[in-house]
Amino acid sequence: MQELRGMPVAKSLREALSQEILRLKESGTVPRLAIVRVGEREDDLSYERGVYRQFEAAGAQAETTALPETVSQRELEDTVRRLDENEDVDGILLFRPLPGHLDEAAVCSLISKRKDIDCMTPMGAAHIFVGDKEGHPPCTPQAVMELLSYYGVDLTGRRVTVVGRSMVVGRPLAMLLLQKNATVTICHSKTENLAEECRRADILIVCAGVPEMITKEYMREGQIIVDVGIHAKGDGLCGDVKYEHAREIAGKVTPVPGGVGSVTTVVLLRNTVESAKKRNSRSCGKG
Amino acid sequence: MQELRGMPVAKSLREALSQEILRLKESGTVPRLAIVRVGEREDDLSYERGVYRQFEAAGAQAETTALPETVSQRELEDTVRRLDENEDVDGILLFRPLPGHLDEAAVCSLISKRKDIDCMTPMGAAHIFVGDKEGHPPCTPQAVMELLSYYGVDLTGRRVTVVGRSMVVGRPLAMLLLQKNATVTICHSKTENLAEECRRADILIVCAGVPEMITKEYMREGQIIVDVGIHAKGDGLCGDVKYEHAREIAGKVTPVPGGVGSVTTVVLLRNTVESAKKRNSRSCGKG
Repeated sequence: MQELRGMPVAKSLREALSQEILRLKESGTVPRLAIVRVGEREDDLSYERGVYRQFEAAGAQAETTALPETVSQRELEDTVRRLDENEDVDGILLFRPLPGHLDEAAVCSLISKRKDIDCMTPMGAAHIFVGDKEGHPPCTPQAVMELLSYYGVDLTGRRVTVVGRSMVVGRPLAMLLLQKNATVTICHSKTENLAEECRRADILIVCAGVPEMITKEYMREGQIIVDVGIHAKGDGLCGDVKYEHAREIAGKVTPVPGGVGSVTTVVLLRNTVESAKKRNSRSCGKG
Repeated sequence: MQELRGMPVAKSLREALSQEILRLKESGTVPRLAIVRVGEREDDLSYERGVYRQFEAAGAQAETTALPETVSQRELEDTVRRLDENEDVDGILLFRPLPGHLDEAAVCSLISKRKDIDCMTPMGAAHIFVGDKEGHPPCTPQAVMELLSYYGVDLTGRRVTVVGRSMVVGRPLAMLLLQKNATVTICHSKTENLAEECRRADILIVCAGVPEMITKEYMREGQIIVDVGIHAKGDGLCGDVKYEHAREIAGKVTPVPGGVGSVTTVVLLRNTVESAKKRNSRSCGKG
Protein backbone atom coordinates (compact mmCIF):
# COMPACT_ATOMS: atom_id res chain seq x y z
CA MET A 1 0.00 0.00 0.00
CA GLN A 2 1.30 3.42 -0.96
CA GLU A 3 0.33 6.38 1.16
CA LEU A 4 -0.47 9.42 -1.00
CA ARG A 5 0.83 12.10 1.33
CA GLY A 6 0.00 15.72 0.65
CA MET A 7 3.20 17.21 2.00
CA PRO A 8 5.52 16.45 -0.97
CA VAL A 9 2.81 17.71 -3.36
CA ALA A 10 2.49 20.93 -1.38
CA LYS A 11 6.26 21.29 -1.15
CA SER A 12 6.77 20.92 -4.88
CA LEU A 13 4.00 23.43 -5.64
CA ARG A 14 5.29 25.89 -3.03
CA GLU A 15 8.83 25.81 -4.36
CA ALA A 16 7.67 26.91 -7.78
CA LEU A 17 5.45 29.57 -6.21
CA SER A 18 8.19 30.97 -3.97
CA GLN A 19 10.19 31.86 -7.08
CA GLU A 20 7.20 33.60 -8.59
CA ILE A 21 6.49 35.48 -5.38
CA LEU A 22 10.11 36.66 -5.29
CA ARG A 23 9.83 38.02 -8.81
CA LEU A 24 6.53 39.73 -7.97
CA LYS A 25 8.02 41.38 -4.91
CA GLU A 26 10.92 42.65 -6.98
CA SER A 27 8.42 44.52 -9.10
CA GLY A 28 6.64 45.83 -6.03
CA THR A 29 3.72 43.41 -5.74
CA VAL A 30 3.16 41.30 -2.60
CA PRO A 31 0.45 38.64 -3.09
CA ARG A 32 -2.19 39.33 -0.48
CA LEU A 33 -5.13 37.28 0.69
CA ALA A 34 -8.01 38.73 2.71
CA ILE A 35 -9.85 36.21 4.87
CA VAL A 36 -13.34 37.13 6.08
CA ARG A 37 -14.39 35.09 9.08
CA VAL A 38 -17.77 35.34 10.81
CA GLY A 39 -17.72 33.89 14.32
CA GLU A 40 -15.06 31.56 15.72
CA ARG A 41 -15.82 28.05 14.50
CA GLU A 42 -12.99 25.69 15.37
CA ASP A 43 -12.65 24.31 11.82
CA ASP A 44 -12.46 27.84 10.38
CA LEU A 45 -9.78 28.80 12.92
CA SER A 46 -7.82 25.65 12.19
CA TYR A 47 -7.93 26.24 8.43
CA GLU A 48 -6.99 29.87 8.99
CA ARG A 49 -3.88 28.84 10.94
CA GLY A 50 -2.91 26.54 8.06
CA VAL A 51 -3.34 29.37 5.57
CA TYR A 52 -1.14 31.71 7.62
CA ARG A 53 1.61 29.08 7.89
CA GLN A 54 1.51 28.44 4.14
CA PHE A 55 1.53 32.09 3.13
CA GLU A 56 4.28 33.04 5.57
CA ALA A 57 6.49 30.15 4.45
CA ALA A 58 6.17 31.34 0.87
CA GLY A 59 6.58 35.06 1.56
CA ALA A 60 3.01 36.07 0.79
CA GLN A 61 0.55 37.98 2.98
CA ALA A 62 -2.68 36.84 4.61
CA GLU A 63 -4.87 38.89 6.92
CA THR A 64 -8.20 38.26 8.58
CA THR A 65 -11.22 40.47 9.11
CA ALA A 66 -13.01 38.76 11.99
CA LEU A 67 -16.67 39.65 12.44
CA PRO A 68 -18.99 38.66 15.28
CA GLU A 69 -21.50 35.86 14.68
CA THR A 70 -24.25 38.45 15.02
CA VAL A 71 -22.92 40.63 12.20
CA SER A 72 -25.61 42.16 9.98
CA GLN A 73 -25.90 41.42 6.26
CA ARG A 74 -25.19 45.09 5.58
CA GLU A 75 -22.02 45.14 7.63
CA LEU A 76 -20.72 41.91 6.11
CA GLU A 77 -21.44 43.17 2.59
CA ASP A 78 -19.69 46.45 3.36
CA THR A 79 -16.63 44.53 4.53
CA VAL A 80 -16.47 42.38 1.41
CA ARG A 81 -17.14 45.38 -0.86
CA ARG A 82 -14.33 47.34 0.75
CA LEU A 83 -11.88 44.43 0.30
CA ASP A 84 -12.99 43.97 -3.28
CA GLU A 85 -12.42 47.65 -4.04
CA ASN A 86 -8.95 47.60 -2.47
CA GLU A 87 -6.66 47.01 -5.46
CA ASP A 88 -3.86 45.62 -3.21
CA VAL A 89 -6.02 42.65 -2.18
CA ASP A 90 -5.56 39.71 -4.57
CA GLY A 91 -7.99 37.20 -3.16
CA ILE A 92 -10.97 37.12 -0.81
CA LEU A 93 -11.70 33.97 1.16
CA LEU A 94 -15.05 33.93 2.94
CA PHE A 95 -15.48 31.06 5.40
CA ARG A 96 -18.73 29.19 4.81
CA PRO A 97 -21.34 28.18 5.72
CA LEU A 98 -22.33 31.55 7.16
CA PRO A 99 -24.70 31.76 10.15
CA GLY A 100 -28.31 31.22 9.05
CA HIS A 101 -29.44 34.84 9.17
CA LEU A 102 -26.98 35.83 6.43
CA ASP A 103 -27.50 35.58 2.65
CA GLU A 104 -24.36 33.81 1.45
CA ALA A 105 -25.10 34.13 -2.28
CA ALA A 106 -25.59 37.90 -1.99
CA VAL A 107 -22.26 38.29 -0.21
CA CYS A 108 -20.35 36.07 -2.65
CA SER A 109 -21.74 37.91 -5.66
CA LEU A 110 -19.84 41.02 -4.53
CA ILE A 111 -16.47 39.37 -5.19
CA SER A 112 -14.95 40.31 -8.52
CA LYS A 113 -13.56 37.70 -10.89
CA ARG A 114 -9.85 38.30 -10.21
CA LYS A 115 -10.32 37.94 -6.43
CA ASP A 116 -12.59 34.89 -6.56
CA ILE A 117 -9.76 32.53 -5.59
CA ASP A 118 -12.03 29.79 -4.18
CA CYS A 119 -14.80 29.80 -6.82
CA MET A 120 -17.41 31.43 -4.61
CA THR A 121 -19.28 33.33 -7.36
CA PRO A 122 -21.77 31.97 -9.92
CA MET A 123 -19.50 33.07 -12.78
CA GLY A 124 -16.66 31.13 -11.18
CA ALA A 125 -18.91 28.07 -11.11
CA ALA A 126 -19.86 28.63 -14.75
CA HIS A 127 -16.21 28.55 -15.80
CA ILE A 128 -15.70 25.17 -14.10
CA PHE A 129 -18.88 23.77 -15.63
CA VAL A 130 -18.08 25.02 -19.13
CA GLY A 131 -14.43 24.03 -18.68
CA ASP A 132 -13.02 27.14 -20.37
CA LYS A 133 -10.01 27.48 -18.01
CA GLU A 134 -11.06 30.97 -16.98
CA GLY A 135 -11.33 31.66 -13.26
CA HIS A 136 -10.07 29.44 -10.42
CA PRO A 137 -11.59 26.08 -9.48
CA PRO A 138 -12.38 25.80 -5.78
CA CYS A 139 -9.26 24.91 -3.80
CA THR A 140 -10.25 21.49 -2.46
CA PRO A 141 -11.17 19.83 -5.81
CA GLN A 142 -8.10 21.43 -7.33
CA ALA A 143 -5.99 19.98 -4.50
CA VAL A 144 -7.35 16.50 -5.30
CA MET A 145 -6.35 16.93 -8.94
CA GLU A 146 -2.85 18.15 -7.99
CA LEU A 147 -2.38 15.21 -5.68
CA LEU A 148 -3.41 12.67 -8.33
CA SER A 149 -1.23 14.37 -10.91
CA TYR A 150 1.81 14.48 -8.59
CA TYR A 151 1.55 10.73 -7.96
CA GLY A 152 1.25 10.04 -11.69
CA VAL A 153 -2.32 8.75 -11.65
CA ASP A 154 -3.56 8.79 -15.26
CA LEU A 155 -7.29 9.45 -15.32
CA THR A 156 -8.05 8.90 -19.01
CA GLY A 157 -10.83 6.35 -19.43
CA ARG A 158 -10.60 5.32 -15.75
CA ARG A 159 -13.68 4.73 -13.63
CA VAL A 160 -13.82 7.39 -10.94
CA THR A 161 -16.57 7.41 -8.33
CA VAL A 162 -17.15 10.64 -6.42
CA VAL A 163 -19.17 10.28 -3.21
CA GLY A 164 -20.72 13.68 -2.50
CA ARG A 165 -22.35 16.29 -4.72
CA SER A 166 -21.73 19.62 -2.96
CA MET A 167 -20.86 22.76 -4.88
CA VAL A 168 -17.75 23.08 -2.71
CA VAL A 169 -16.25 19.72 -3.68
CA GLY A 170 -18.28 16.98 -5.41
CA ARG A 171 -19.78 18.72 -8.42
CA PRO A 172 -16.79 20.88 -9.42
CA LEU A 173 -14.49 17.89 -8.85
CA ALA A 174 -16.62 15.79 -11.22
CA MET A 175 -16.15 18.47 -13.88
CA LEU A 176 -12.36 18.61 -13.38
CA LEU A 177 -12.20 14.80 -13.63
CA LEU A 178 -14.25 14.88 -16.85
CA GLN A 179 -11.79 17.38 -18.32
CA LYS A 180 -9.09 14.76 -17.69
CA ASN A 181 -11.21 12.19 -19.57
CA ALA A 182 -12.22 10.08 -16.58
CA THR A 183 -15.55 8.23 -16.64
CA VAL A 184 -17.21 9.86 -13.66
CA THR A 185 -19.98 8.54 -11.41
CA ILE A 186 -21.49 10.95 -8.89
CA CYS A 187 -22.97 9.27 -5.82
CA HIS A 188 -24.73 10.81 -2.83
CA SER A 189 -26.98 10.10 0.12
CA LYS A 190 -29.80 8.83 -2.14
CA THR A 191 -27.61 6.38 -4.10
CA GLU A 192 -28.84 2.79 -3.90
CA ASN A 193 -26.15 0.23 -3.18
CA LEU A 194 -23.41 2.74 -2.58
CA ALA A 195 -20.97 0.01 -1.55
CA GLU A 196 -21.18 -1.58 -5.00
CA GLU A 197 -20.73 1.76 -6.75
CA CYS A 198 -17.64 2.41 -4.63
CA ARG A 199 -16.13 -1.06 -5.09
CA ARG A 200 -16.23 -0.93 -8.88
CA ALA A 201 -14.30 2.36 -9.06
CA ASP A 202 -10.66 2.40 -10.12
CA ILE A 203 -10.35 5.61 -8.16
CA LEU A 204 -12.70 6.33 -5.26
CA ILE A 205 -12.93 9.92 -4.05
CA VAL A 206 -14.94 10.55 -0.91
CA CYS A 207 -16.26 14.00 0.00
CA ALA A 208 -19.44 13.02 1.83
CA GLY A 209 -18.78 14.75 5.12
CA VAL A 210 -19.57 11.66 7.22
CA PRO A 211 -16.82 10.38 9.56
CA GLU A 212 -15.40 6.97 8.57
CA MET A 213 -18.47 5.97 6.55
CA ILE A 214 -16.39 4.20 3.89
CA THR A 215 -15.47 0.86 5.45
CA LYS A 216 -14.03 -2.30 3.90
CA GLU A 217 -17.36 -3.28 2.27
CA TYR A 218 -16.96 -0.21 0.05
CA MET A 219 -13.41 -1.03 -1.04
CA ARG A 220 -11.77 -3.20 -3.65
CA GLU A 221 -8.28 -4.67 -3.62
CA GLY A 222 -5.73 -2.34 -5.24
CA GLN A 223 -8.02 0.67 -5.54
CA ILE A 224 -6.86 4.25 -5.28
CA ILE A 225 -8.79 6.00 -2.48
CA VAL A 226 -8.78 9.76 -1.93
CA ASP A 227 -10.32 10.97 1.32
CA VAL A 228 -11.46 14.60 1.31
CA GLY A 229 -13.22 14.50 4.70
CA ILE A 230 -11.79 15.82 7.94
CA HIS A 231 -13.44 15.43 11.33
CA ALA A 232 -12.50 15.65 14.98
CA LYS A 233 -12.15 12.19 16.56
CA GLY A 234 -11.13 11.89 20.17
CA ASP A 235 -7.87 13.82 20.47
CA GLY A 236 -7.13 13.50 16.78
CA LEU A 237 -8.70 13.69 13.35
CA CYS A 238 -10.30 11.24 10.93
CA GLY A 239 -11.64 11.35 7.40
CA ASP A 240 -14.70 10.01 5.57
CA VAL A 241 -12.77 6.78 5.01
CA LYS A 242 -11.99 4.17 7.69
CA TYR A 243 -8.24 4.39 7.31
CA GLU A 244 -7.36 1.10 8.99
CA HIS A 245 -9.52 -0.71 6.40
CA ALA A 246 -8.20 1.28 3.45
CA ARG A 247 -4.64 0.60 4.52
CA GLU A 248 -5.25 -3.13 4.26
CA ILE A 249 -7.24 -3.18 1.03
CA ALA A 250 -6.43 -0.18 -1.16
CA GLY A 251 -3.43 0.10 -3.46
CA LYS A 252 -2.94 3.78 -2.69
CA VAL A 253 -4.69 5.94 -0.11
CA THR A 254 -4.52 9.50 1.18
CA PRO A 255 -4.11 9.79 4.98
CA VAL A 256 -6.14 12.16 7.18
CA PRO A 257 -4.57 14.40 8.35
CA GLY A 258 -1.68 14.83 5.91
CA GLY A 259 -3.50 14.11 2.66
CA VAL A 260 -5.69 16.39 0.54
CA GLY A 261 -5.93 19.01 3.30
CA SER A 262 -2.19 19.69 3.17
CA VAL A 263 -2.46 20.57 -0.51
CA THR A 264 -5.52 22.83 -0.25
CA THR A 265 -3.79 25.84 1.31
CA VAL A 266 -0.98 25.78 -1.25
CA VAL A 267 -3.60 25.77 -4.03
CA LEU A 268 -5.14 28.79 -2.32
CA LEU A 269 -1.69 30.38 -2.37
CA ARG A 270 -1.29 29.60 -6.06
CA ASN A 271 -4.67 31.11 -6.94
CA THR A 272 -3.72 34.23 -4.96
CA VAL A 273 -0.36 34.47 -6.72
CA GLU A 274 -2.04 34.15 -10.12
CA SER A 275 -4.34 37.01 -9.21
CA ALA A 276 -1.35 39.06 -8.00
CA LYS A 277 0.36 38.45 -11.36
CA LYS A 278 -2.66 39.97 -13.12
CA ARG A 279 -2.52 42.99 -10.81
CA ASN A 280 1.21 43.30 -11.38
CA SER A 281 0.99 43.17 -15.17
CA ARG A 282 -1.72 45.85 -15.03
CA SER A 283 0.35 48.18 -12.89
CA CYS A 284 3.39 47.56 -15.10
CA GLY A 285 1.23 48.31 -18.12
CA LYS A 286 0.16 51.57 -16.48
CA GLY A 287 3.67 52.50 -15.39
CA MET B 1 -41.65 -3.07 -24.77
CA GLN B 2 -43.17 0.34 -24.24
CA GLU B 3 -42.42 3.07 -26.72
CA LEU B 4 -41.84 6.40 -24.96
CA ARG B 5 -43.31 8.69 -27.59
CA GLY B 6 -42.75 12.42 -27.36
CA MET B 7 -46.06 13.49 -28.87
CA PRO B 8 -48.32 12.95 -25.82
CA VAL B 9 -45.73 14.69 -23.62
CA ALA B 10 -45.62 17.65 -25.99
CA LYS B 11 -49.42 17.71 -26.24
CA SER B 12 -49.90 17.77 -22.50
CA LEU B 13 -47.33 20.54 -22.06
CA ARG B 14 -48.76 22.55 -24.97
CA GLU B 15 -52.32 22.39 -23.65
CA ALA B 16 -51.27 24.00 -20.38
CA LEU B 17 -49.23 26.58 -22.27
CA SER B 18 -52.04 27.49 -24.67
CA GLN B 19 -54.12 28.63 -21.71
CA GLU B 20 -51.27 30.75 -20.41
CA ILE B 21 -50.66 32.26 -23.85
CA LEU B 22 -54.36 33.17 -24.09
CA ARG B 23 -54.22 34.96 -20.77
CA LEU B 24 -51.03 36.79 -21.79
CA LYS B 25 -52.61 37.92 -25.05
CA GLU B 26 -55.62 39.25 -23.17
CA SER B 27 -53.28 41.53 -21.28
CA GLY B 28 -51.56 42.58 -24.50
CA THR B 29 -48.45 40.35 -24.48
CA VAL B 30 -47.74 37.91 -27.32
CA PRO B 31 -44.85 35.54 -26.50
CA ARG B 32 -42.23 36.09 -29.18
CA LEU B 33 -39.13 34.11 -30.08
CA ALA B 34 -36.35 35.50 -32.28
CA ILE B 35 -34.31 32.88 -34.11
CA VAL B 36 -30.89 33.88 -35.41
CA ARG B 37 -29.67 31.57 -38.14
CA VAL B 38 -26.30 31.83 -39.88
CA GLY B 39 -26.22 29.96 -43.20
CA GLU B 40 -28.70 27.29 -44.29
CA ARG B 41 -27.71 24.02 -42.64
CA GLU B 42 -30.35 21.38 -43.21
CA ASP B 43 -30.66 20.43 -39.52
CA ASP B 44 -31.08 24.08 -38.53
CA LEU B 45 -33.80 24.54 -41.16
CA SER B 46 -35.56 21.37 -40.05
CA TYR B 47 -35.52 22.42 -36.38
CA GLU B 48 -36.69 25.89 -37.39
CA ARG B 49 -39.70 24.42 -39.20
CA GLY B 50 -40.55 22.42 -36.08
CA VAL B 51 -40.33 25.56 -33.92
CA TYR B 52 -42.65 27.47 -36.27
CA ARG B 53 -45.22 24.64 -36.21
CA GLN B 54 -45.11 24.46 -32.41
CA PHE B 55 -45.39 28.22 -31.85
CA GLU B 56 -48.19 28.63 -34.41
CA ALA B 57 -50.21 25.78 -32.94
CA ALA B 58 -50.01 27.42 -29.51
CA GLY B 59 -50.66 30.98 -30.68
CA ALA B 60 -47.15 32.33 -30.03
CA GLN B 61 -44.83 34.11 -32.45
CA ALA B 62 -41.53 33.02 -33.92
CA GLU B 63 -39.45 34.91 -36.46
CA THR B 64 -36.06 34.33 -38.04
CA THR B 65 -33.21 36.64 -38.83
CA ALA B 66 -31.28 34.73 -41.48
CA LEU B 67 -27.69 35.80 -42.03
CA PRO B 68 -25.28 34.62 -44.74
CA GLU B 69 -22.59 32.12 -43.79
CA THR B 70 -20.01 34.85 -44.46
CA VAL B 71 -21.52 37.27 -41.92
CA SER B 72 -18.98 39.24 -39.92
CA GLN B 73 -18.65 39.02 -36.15
CA ARG B 74 -19.63 42.67 -35.92
CA GLU B 75 -22.79 42.24 -37.98
CA LEU B 76 -23.87 39.13 -36.05
CA GLU B 77 -23.27 40.87 -32.72
CA ASP B 78 -25.23 43.90 -33.89
CA THR B 79 -28.15 41.64 -34.81
CA VAL B 80 -28.18 39.89 -31.43
CA ARG B 81 -27.74 43.18 -29.56
CA ARG B 82 -30.67 44.71 -31.42
CA LEU B 83 -32.92 41.73 -30.60
CA ASP B 84 -31.81 41.80 -26.99
CA GLU B 85 -32.65 45.50 -26.70
CA ASN B 86 -36.09 45.00 -28.25
CA GLU B 87 -38.37 44.62 -25.21
CA ASP B 88 -41.03 42.77 -27.28
CA VAL B 89 -38.66 39.85 -27.91
CA ASP B 90 -38.94 37.21 -25.17
CA GLY B 91 -36.32 34.75 -26.26
CA ILE B 92 -33.32 34.57 -28.58
CA LEU B 93 -32.35 31.26 -30.14
CA LEU B 94 -29.00 31.21 -31.90
CA PHE B 95 -28.35 28.10 -33.96
CA ARG B 96 -24.99 26.58 -33.14
CA PRO B 97 -22.30 25.64 -33.93
CA LEU B 98 -21.52 28.86 -35.79
CA PRO B 99 -19.15 28.85 -38.78
CA GLY B 100 -15.51 28.71 -37.62
CA HIS B 101 -14.62 32.38 -38.20
CA LEU B 102 -17.19 33.52 -35.60
CA ASP B 103 -16.68 33.80 -31.82
CA GLU B 104 -19.70 31.97 -30.40
CA ALA B 105 -19.03 32.83 -26.73
CA ALA B 106 -18.79 36.54 -27.51
CA VAL B 107 -22.14 36.47 -29.33
CA CYS B 108 -23.89 34.44 -26.62
CA SER B 109 -22.67 36.74 -23.86
CA LEU B 110 -24.78 39.53 -25.37
CA ILE B 111 -28.03 37.74 -24.52
CA SER B 112 -29.65 38.98 -21.32
CA LYS B 113 -30.88 36.59 -18.65
CA ARG B 114 -34.61 36.84 -19.43
CA LYS B 115 -34.09 36.06 -23.10
CA ASP B 116 -31.61 33.20 -22.60
CA ILE B 117 -34.24 30.53 -23.26
CA ASP B 118 -31.77 27.83 -24.32
CA CYS B 119 -29.05 28.35 -21.71
CA MET B 120 -26.54 29.87 -24.11
CA THR B 121 -24.82 32.23 -21.63
CA PRO B 122 -22.26 31.39 -18.91
CA MET B 123 -24.64 32.67 -16.22
CA GLY B 124 -27.32 30.35 -17.57
CA ALA B 125 -24.86 27.48 -17.26
CA ALA B 126 -23.97 28.56 -13.71
CA HIS B 127 -27.63 28.33 -12.66
CA ILE B 128 -27.87 24.74 -13.92
CA PHE B 129 -24.61 23.78 -12.24
CA VAL B 130 -25.52 25.38 -8.92
CA GLY B 131 -29.09 24.08 -9.24
CA ASP B 132 -30.74 27.24 -7.94
CA LYS B 133 -33.75 27.09 -10.32
CA GLU B 134 -32.94 30.50 -11.77
CA GLY B 135 -32.70 30.73 -15.55
CA HIS B 136 -33.77 28.09 -18.09
CA PRO B 137 -31.99 24.76 -18.60
CA PRO B 138 -31.15 24.09 -22.25
CA CYS B 139 -34.20 22.75 -24.10
CA THR B 140 -32.96 19.27 -25.00
CA PRO B 141 -31.96 18.09 -21.50
CA GLN B 142 -35.14 19.66 -20.16
CA ALA B 143 -37.10 17.71 -22.79
CA VAL B 144 -35.51 14.47 -21.58
CA MET B 145 -36.56 15.27 -18.01
CA GLU B 146 -40.14 16.11 -19.09
CA LEU B 147 -40.38 12.87 -21.01
CA LEU B 148 -39.18 10.75 -18.08
CA SER B 149 -41.50 12.60 -15.72
CA TYR B 150 -44.53 12.20 -18.03
CA TYR B 151 -43.99 8.44 -18.19
CA GLY B 152 -43.65 8.23 -14.41
CA VAL B 153 -40.00 7.20 -14.29
CA ASP B 154 -38.79 7.77 -10.71
CA LEU B 155 -35.11 8.70 -10.76
CA THR B 156 -34.34 8.67 -7.03
CA GLY B 157 -31.38 6.40 -6.34
CA ARG B 158 -31.51 4.91 -9.85
CA ARG B 159 -28.39 4.30 -11.87
CA VAL B 160 -28.43 6.62 -14.87
CA THR B 161 -25.68 6.51 -17.49
CA VAL B 162 -25.33 9.50 -19.79
CA VAL B 163 -23.26 8.91 -22.94
CA GLY B 164 -21.96 12.31 -24.07
CA ARG B 165 -20.54 15.28 -22.18
CA SER B 166 -21.38 18.31 -24.33
CA MET B 167 -22.50 21.59 -22.81
CA VAL B 168 -25.63 21.41 -24.99
CA VAL B 169 -26.87 18.08 -23.62
CA GLY B 170 -24.65 15.75 -21.57
CA ARG B 171 -23.29 17.94 -18.78
CA PRO B 172 -26.45 19.99 -18.06
CA LEU B 173 -28.51 16.80 -18.25
CA ALA B 174 -26.25 15.17 -15.65
CA MET B 175 -26.94 18.11 -13.32
CA LEU B 176 -30.72 17.91 -13.82
CA LEU B 177 -30.60 14.16 -13.11
CA LEU B 178 -28.59 14.79 -9.93
CA GLN B 179 -31.22 17.26 -8.78
CA LYS B 180 -33.72 14.39 -9.06
CA ASN B 181 -31.44 12.23 -6.91
CA ALA B 182 -30.25 9.86 -9.61
CA THR B 183 -26.80 8.26 -9.34
CA VAL B 184 -25.24 9.64 -12.51
CA THR B 185 -22.38 8.27 -14.58
CA ILE B 186 -21.03 10.45 -17.39
CA CYS B 187 -19.43 8.51 -20.25
CA HIS B 188 -17.76 9.80 -23.41
CA SER B 189 -15.44 8.90 -26.26
CA LYS B 190 -12.56 8.12 -23.88
CA THR B 191 -14.58 5.79 -21.61
CA GLU B 192 -13.08 2.29 -21.37
CA ASN B 193 -15.55 -0.53 -21.77
CA LEU B 194 -18.48 1.68 -22.65
CA ALA B 195 -20.71 -1.32 -23.34
CA GLU B 196 -20.41 -2.47 -19.72
CA GLU B 197 -21.11 1.03 -18.38
CA CYS B 198 -24.22 1.19 -20.55
CA ARG B 199 -25.49 -2.29 -19.67
CA ARG B 200 -25.42 -1.70 -15.93
CA ALA B 201 -27.57 1.44 -16.13
CA ASP B 202 -31.21 1.33 -15.07
CA ILE B 203 -31.74 4.24 -17.42
CA LEU B 204 -29.44 4.78 -20.39
CA ILE B 205 -29.46 8.20 -22.03
CA VAL B 206 -27.49 8.58 -25.24
CA CYS B 207 -26.40 11.98 -26.55
CA ALA B 208 -23.16 11.01 -28.26
CA GLY B 209 -23.95 12.27 -31.75
CA VAL B 210 -22.91 9.02 -33.44
CA PRO B 211 -25.54 7.27 -35.60
CA GLU B 212 -26.72 3.91 -34.21
CA MET B 213 -23.59 3.40 -32.08
CA ILE B 214 -25.56 1.81 -29.22
CA THR B 215 -26.21 -1.74 -30.37
CA LYS B 216 -27.43 -4.79 -28.44
CA GLU B 217 -24.05 -5.31 -26.73
CA TYR B 218 -24.69 -2.03 -24.88
CA MET B 219 -28.18 -2.98 -23.68
CA ARG B 220 -29.67 -4.93 -20.81
CA GLU B 221 -33.05 -6.65 -20.66
CA GLY B 222 -35.75 -4.34 -19.33
CA GLN B 223 -33.69 -1.14 -19.39
CA ILE B 224 -35.11 2.30 -20.10
CA ILE B 225 -33.31 3.82 -23.09
CA VAL B 226 -33.58 7.47 -24.10
CA ASP B 227 -32.12 8.39 -27.47
CA VAL B 228 -31.26 12.06 -27.91
CA GLY B 229 -29.47 11.66 -31.26
CA ILE B 230 -30.98 12.47 -34.65
CA HIS B 231 -29.28 11.80 -37.97
CA ALA B 232 -30.21 11.48 -41.63
CA LYS B 233 -30.28 7.83 -42.76
CA GLY B 234 -31.25 7.06 -46.32
CA ASP B 235 -34.63 8.72 -46.83
CA GLY B 236 -35.39 8.77 -43.12
CA LEU B 237 -33.86 9.49 -39.74
CA CYS B 238 -32.11 7.46 -37.05
CA GLY B 239 -30.79 8.11 -33.55
CA ASP B 240 -27.65 7.23 -31.60
CA VAL B 241 -29.35 3.96 -30.64
CA LYS B 242 -29.92 0.99 -32.97
CA TYR B 243 -33.68 1.01 -32.59
CA GLU B 244 -34.29 -2.54 -33.86
CA HIS B 245 -32.03 -3.85 -31.10
CA ALA B 246 -33.51 -1.61 -28.39
CA ARG B 247 -37.03 -2.69 -29.37
CA GLU B 248 -36.12 -6.30 -28.66
CA ILE B 249 -34.15 -5.81 -25.45
CA ALA B 250 -35.19 -2.62 -23.63
CA GLY B 251 -38.22 -2.28 -21.38
CA LYS B 252 -38.98 1.23 -22.57
CA VAL B 253 -37.37 3.18 -25.41
CA THR B 254 -37.80 6.53 -27.14
CA PRO B 255 -38.20 6.32 -30.93
CA VAL B 256 -36.33 8.55 -33.42
CA PRO B 257 -38.07 10.50 -34.86
CA GLY B 258 -40.98 10.99 -32.49
CA GLY B 259 -39.15 10.84 -29.16
CA VAL B 260 -37.13 13.50 -27.35
CA GLY B 261 -37.07 15.76 -30.42
CA SER B 262 -40.84 16.19 -30.35
CA VAL B 263 -40.65 17.54 -26.81
CA THR B 264 -37.75 19.96 -27.35
CA THR B 265 -39.68 22.62 -29.27
CA VAL B 266 -42.50 22.69 -26.71
CA VAL B 267 -39.92 23.21 -23.96
CA LEU B 268 -38.57 26.10 -26.04
CA LEU B 269 -42.13 27.42 -26.18
CA ARG B 270 -42.48 27.09 -22.43
CA ASN B 271 -39.24 28.94 -21.74
CA THR B 272 -40.38 31.71 -24.11
CA VAL B 273 -43.78 31.92 -22.38
CA GLU B 274 -42.11 32.15 -18.96
CA SER B 275 -40.01 35.04 -20.23
CA ALA B 276 -43.13 36.71 -21.69
CA LYS B 277 -44.82 36.40 -18.29
CA LYS B 278 -41.93 38.33 -16.73
CA ARG B 279 -42.27 41.02 -19.39
CA ASN B 280 -46.04 41.15 -18.86
CA SER B 281 -45.83 41.51 -15.10
CA ARG B 282 -43.29 44.31 -15.56
CA SER B 283 -45.52 46.21 -17.99
CA CYS B 284 -48.55 45.67 -15.72
CA GLY B 285 -46.47 46.98 -12.84
CA LYS B 286 -45.64 50.06 -14.87
CA GLY B 287 -49.23 50.63 -16.05
